[in-house]
Amino acid sequence: MANPGITNTGSAAKLQERLVDIRRNLHLEPELSNEEFETTRKIKAWLKEANIEILDLPNLKTGVIAQIGTGREPIMALRADIDALPIDEETDVPFRSKFAGKMHACGHDFHTTVALGAAYLLKEKEQELQGTVRIIFQPAEETGHGAKDVVDSGGLEGVSAIFGLHNSPELAVGELGTCEGAITAGVDRFEIVINGIGAHAATPEKGTDAIVAASQIILALQTITSRRVSALDAVVVSVTRISGGNTWNVLPGTVELEGTVRTLDVEVQKRIPDTIRQIIDGIGASAGVSAELKWYPGPLATINDAYWAKFASDAAEESGYVTKVLGPSMGGEDFSYYLQHIPGAFVYVGSNSPYALHHPKFNPEEDALLPAAEYYSHLAVRCLNELNTR
Amino acid sequence: MANPGITNTGSAAKLQERLVDIRRNLHLEPELSNEEFETTRKIKAWLKEANIEILDLPNLKTGVIAQIGTGREPIMALRADIDALPIDEETDVPFRSKFAGKMHACGHDFHTTVALGAAYLLKEKEQELQGTVRIIFQPAEETGHGAKDVVDSGGLEGVSAIFGLHNSPELAVGELGTCEGAITAGVDRFEIVINGIGAHAATPEKGTDAIVAASQIILALQTITSRRVSALDAVVVSVTRISGGNTWNVLPGTVELEGTVRTLDVEVQKRIPDTIRQIIDGIGASAGVSAELKWYPGPLATINDAYWAKFASDAAEESGYVTKVLGPSMGGEDFSYYLQHIPGAFVYVGSNSPYALHHPKFNPEEDALLPAAEYYSHLAVRCLNELNTR
Amino acid sequence: MANPGITNTGSAAKLQERLVDIRRNLHLEPELSNEEFETTRKIKAWLKEANIEILDLPNLKTGVIAQIGTGREPIMALRADIDALPIDEETDVPFRSKFAGKMHACGHDFHTTVALGAAYLLKEKEQELQGTVRIIFQPAEETGHGAKDVVDSGGLEGVSAIFGLHNSPELAVGELGTCEGAITAGVDRFEIVINGIGAHAATPEKGTDAIVAASQIILALQTITSRRVSALDAVVVSVTRISGGNTWNVLPGTVELEGTVRTLDVEVQKRIPDTIRQIIDGIGASAGVSAELKWYPGPLATINDAYWAKFASDAAEESGYVTKVLGPSMGGEDFSYYLQHIPGAFVYVGSNSPYALHHPKFNPEEDALLPAAEYYSHLAVRCLNELNTR
Amino acid sequence: MANPGITNTGSAAKLQERLVDIRRNLHLEPELSNEEFETTRKIKAWLKEANIEILDLPNLKTGVIAQIGTGREPIMALRADIDALPIDEETDVPFRSKFAGKMHACGHDFHTTVALGAAYLLKEKEQELQGTVRIIFQPAEETGHGAKDVVDSGGLEGVSAIFGLHNSPELAVGELGTCEGAITAGVDRFEIVINGIGAHAATPEKGTDAIVAASQIILALQTITSRRVSALDAVVVSVTRISGGNTWNVLPGTVELEGTVRTLDVEVQKRIPDTIRQIIDGIGASAGVSAELKWYPGPLATINDAYWAKFASDAAEESGYVTKVLGPSMGGEDFSYYLQHIPGAFVYVGSNSPYALHHPKFNPEEDALLPAAEYYSHLAVRCLNELNTR
Repeated sequence: MANPGITNTGSAAKLQERLVDIRRNLHLEPELSNEEFETTRKIKAWLKEANIEILDLPNLKTGVIAQIGTGREPIMALRADIDALPIDEETDVPFRSKFAGKMHACGHDFHTTVALGAAYLLKEKEQELQGTVRIIFQPAEETGHGAKDVVDSGGLEGVSAIFGLHNSPELAVGELGTCEGAITAGVDRFEIVINGIGAHAATPEKGTDAIVAASQIILALQTITSRRVSALDAVVVSVTRISGGNTWNVLPGTVELEGTVRTLDVEVQKRIPDTIRQIIDGIGASAGVSAELKWYPGPLATINDAYWAKFASDAAEESGYVTKVLGPSMGGEDFSYYLQHIPGAFVYVGSNSPYALHHPKFNPEEDALLPAAEYYSHLAVRCLNELNTR
Repeated sequence: MANPGITNTGSAAKLQERLVDIRRNLHLEPELSNEEFETTRKIKAWLKEANIEILDLPNLKTGVIAQIGTGREPIMALRADIDALPIDEETDVPFRSKFAGKMHACGHDFHTTVALGAAYLLKEKEQELQGTVRIIFQPAEETGHGAKDVVDSGGLEGVSAIFGLHNSPELAVGELGTCEGAITAGVDRFEIVINGIGAHAATPEKGTDAIVAASQIILALQTITSRRVSALDAVVVSVTRISGGNTWNVLPGTVELEGTVRTLDVEVQKRIPDTIRQIIDGIGASAGVSAELKWYPGPLATINDAYWAKFASDAAEESGYVTKVLGPSMGGEDFSYYLQHIPGAFVYVGSNSPYALHHPKFNPEEDALLPAAEYYSHLAVRCLNELNTR
Repeated sequence: MANPGITNTGSAAKLQERLVDIRRNLHLEPELSNEEFETTRKIKAWLKEANIEILDLPNLKTGVIAQIGTGREPIMALRADIDALPIDEETDVPFRSKFAGKMHACGHDFHTTVALGAAYLLKEKEQELQGTVRIIFQPAEETGHGAKDVVDSGGLEGVSAIFGLHNSPELAVGELGTCEGAITAGVDRFEIVINGIGAHAATPEKGTDAIVAASQIILALQTITSRRVSALDAVVVSVTRISGGNTWNVLPGTVELEGTVRTLDVEVQKRIPDTIRQIIDGIGASAGVSAELKWYPGPLATINDAYWAKFASDAAEESGYVTKVLGPSMGGEDFSYYLQHIPGAFVYVGSNSPYALHHPKFNPEEDALLPAAEYYSHLAVRCLNELNTR
Repeated sequence: MANPGITNTGSAAKLQERLVDIRRNLHLEPELSNEEFETTRKIKAWLKEANIEILDLPNLKTGVIAQIGTGREPIMALRADIDALPIDEETDVPFRSKFAGKMHACGHDFHTTVALGAAYLLKEKEQELQGTVRIIFQPAEETGHGAKDVVDSGGLEGVSAIFGLHNSPELAVGELGTCEGAITAGVDRFEIVINGIGAHAATPEKGTDAIVAASQIILALQTITSRRVSALDAVVVSVTRISGGNTWNVLPGTVELEGTVRTLDVEVQKRIPDTIRQIIDGIGASAGVSAELKWYPGPLATINDAYWAKFASDAAEESGYVTKVLGPSMGGEDFSYYLQHIPGAFVYVGSNSPYALHHPKFNPEEDALLPAAEYYSHLAVRCLNELNTR
């Protein structure tokens, strides 16, 4: 790969070393969503070391927004997420998580480091910037609420274009992929509580069987994707947990279901809870049980702006990346929330891990850090130029 | 077997010959339910030959009620049924049905002959009778409406006890079985019409799939017996016909189901249609289709009076039969209608056919005719005696 | 009620008082199945006080068999069960269980007391007995294994007839019910473990969904009663527990089911596990999951001998009881094990509790103790007489 | 719209008149797949009138391939389909189908006319053509076998690029749509025959219930789309016909299902029959019935070559069309067969009918004929030019 962002190879090697340090430091001490207090403190310290401005956003309990450039419009934003997952790490790297049950298994340590690297590179050329770059260190991506917290903090006022980046273990280092339109799915969570009437197992007719009703409901939920949405609309409805009864000779009064719905189209996503309600109300009535839906809306699909997706891909080629057109993923990403308010695009940079995201042995390649930081920096400069021509 | 009814063996042989003639004559010319005009004409002729009184019942379009005895109370009744089935006979007996699509495949020709034989025997001893015997040649048993027609005709007024008899191919000639309580099931018929919205097979989301909804309904109907009635209440719910769609690339708007419900308990029988309605309404609502139940009530369970069931069994032992206690059958019999109004009992006499009732090769043994006629005659005499002691 | 067993009213009142004391003592200190050490000690002490012989049965860890009479054949047996249930008592009687999580909620304290009372009465007339009465204080009825332990102990050798008794809260004091044939159900327990392949909830196609397969299996199990056994064979198949998955975005690899099968016919009972295996193997194969059946056979149906059932009922009428013909119950009772080896009958005596058996507020009426003891005593005497006439 | 193909407005009006005559003539006398003898005769006559060469292809029983140009490579092909549907026409146009049960309800009369128009236009400028244009009048598109017949006839030898066109009632006249990649779906047909064991409806345990098994199979087929393929792979599995049983009191031995599978990805399409077999074999085994799959493979998905799709769209803009990027349709089109052998693209031209394709009142706007013919002609010229530059 060419390194358009850094002409001085020596400083490139030094920055890469610095980024590896930062990433390992973050990896060692992961913090869960909305608990990223120490992480926030560290990011601020690393920014201050480089004299980078930090926005004063009292409502942002965790997370940071840095600012580089003229302080005036046009403004563009680069986003990283900073929270970890409730997973026990199973790697044997020396910087393995020191907290049981917490791990940077999605690579947000990687993303945070890349954004910091981009900040350093942009700070070096601050005088040349034709506008302002905001660098968002977002909390609580995993729970789907951090992007909204950032927007509500006021830290995105005046931003005309925004970009997000995620590492992809399935892409090689040096590859970058994106697409127009949906790139990640809308993600909602649901619970269904089915209340029948318990009875002795020998006399089911004295109650109403919640386990049988739950089975009917689960099979009926399959018809959402098979019959109720177009085959051309990608939808997943998964029941991931079922629990009812605690012994062998008593029919329980209650069964609980839990699961998730994934969609790429917002209009389809909005219709699904009503469809589920229709199914569980009807089957509940047929079986003499009540069934209640609890719906926990999560992020919408991330819909890349066609213009900025091509722009981000072109910038990647200029940065030496091999670019790919990716299909959408049924996974979720709360970057979608920004794109509901600001045009922009979300991209994947290769991190080439043999283990998938969220796997306890996930470990992205650190060689991918510096090129990504340079790309992010280049994208910011190119974007401000573009915004000035409008 | 002893022949308590006939001491003169010569006349017994002669009567047996006569009964075989009658039975074959009936078998040759079967008539369907409510169309038994020629059969009725023949029965009347055979009764008149023996100077047996025929009640004048203008409302009884087909069928006959004969009367023997004092003409005064006590009155008891013996019942035979006379109609045939819409079945193509496949035997090769010389008296095989001469009408395509019509056959005495349930042995009502046998029953009619037995009742005529009993009438002849009773007529011989009419002077000794301590009351009146009514002999019912009932039409339309197979459609479940003939018993009501007989009751409505007024021909059962004053009757204090009633007995019915059916041949059983599973019992040997010389065996007779009955039981207290339910001996045949309540029999209802139903149709369910499921109306969805047709659509091209490639775009099911533009309609509502009636075939999938029908499948859900059929599986839910299984829960009536498995969950909604006591295991101690014998119930059968069978869907016997399903029909929807006529090509490979269009989802049909309508699916039709047809079937039957069998029950031994009248209270349970009454509840089933509401349970089916609850199931189809609920599942219909869940699937966005409408589902209509058409309910065609048939005979109730035949509930033998404990006293008269034992009485009929004891009389059979006196007539030389080996008696058996039978369990109930899930088949139906409109003799139940009489027992809702008059105490009595229903019994099975062995006819020892290798083929089941309703089979196109069914053929009862003719040796069973005379003993059954003698039993019926003896039962009538014994019953009148008993009624006089009350 | 007449008290044919006791002519001296004074001693009757005294015995009733004694029985109430014994029953409350037992109720206060319930012991679970196979842990009835203190209960066994007490019963032995109460028997010894009355000079009643106790069989020396080294293999019987808990439980007692007493013997009264000639010590020679004929021998008949009366059975009581002595274990309690793992239930927290919720009554407010002064003799409420002093052990949390243990309660005589099925009335085995009542049964033990009745058997002791019968022993006292029989001991008084030991000289008149024309044979031997064994009185069985059986452990571990609730777990279904105590009857076998008693038989294996050798304590039933030479016994020609055996009777068991259970209190019925649904019958009034002074009522006794039984029936010919099945009176309690065969009771088996099962577990089904369904192993699919876990996957992310967004990509179910990368695994095989055990929750959906479990739902199909549960609905298919309904067809055992609806389609695979005769409506005339009482069968219950209940899934009482389902458990799979522990979060909202991961499809679990495993789902567990647990439940019970109830039957009145031993041949049907034997066929059911194969039917379940056929269902789960087939549906498992269709869904790409494996499904394993673990079958825990429990008691067979209790099949009353027709002769001894009538005998026990007649004896009850002689003892002043109003007798009833009961239908079978789908509940279980390991008395069935004795009846597989020795003819006899099982009866219910009214204890008139507003709360059902196993309810934490269950409390039988103590007025029912003495009549039941007298009945048991009378039944023993009458039975020995009968056995001597054979 | 501009008419780049025709500068002389007078001749344009005359050609439009001629095309309307041809289209109405074809519409009046529709012929079903592989029966297009008269249609073939007419097309040949219309071609001969214009001195257009007809390839001599003895194996092509119906259908025609015409040829215009140098007779040498490069060769490109334009395709029309010529068969009608077994539908009763319900329009009231004067040229309504004169044959009951046959109708050009998919607009193949339109397509044939457009191709003829293009042939006329190309013939006029034959001297300018830098290669050869083959114009395919394909039989039997509706049954999915005509394209193969054309390829097998040898009439496509040497063809380097091929284009197909379908009218779209959902697009306005003057609109043309296409897309890269899949534009129509793979279409397979299936039948499933489920053989159980018939039984009397009162004794289902004496048979194996094919209707219940069919219901389980239908619900299990829903899991193909919901669980077994990626949400990102568009798949439809529709059961469109179910038929079993013919009366109310007999459980049938056999149930038949029929339906279709639609896919956009060939690898997925290939896997589906095995998945269906796994489902029906497993559920069949679970229910004690056999289930046989009959699989009738139809056309694959039509996969537009990215280059030629853009080329066809660009040519449309040059012809005055407003172009659209369409998503794929789950409908089928045997044009896919050509694209398995020759690069090319399939496009939709607006025909603006209020009734959908295959509707008995479908009627495309005739104003759309001439622009489409001009477009097809222009596309051919442009394509030959392009092929010559390679």
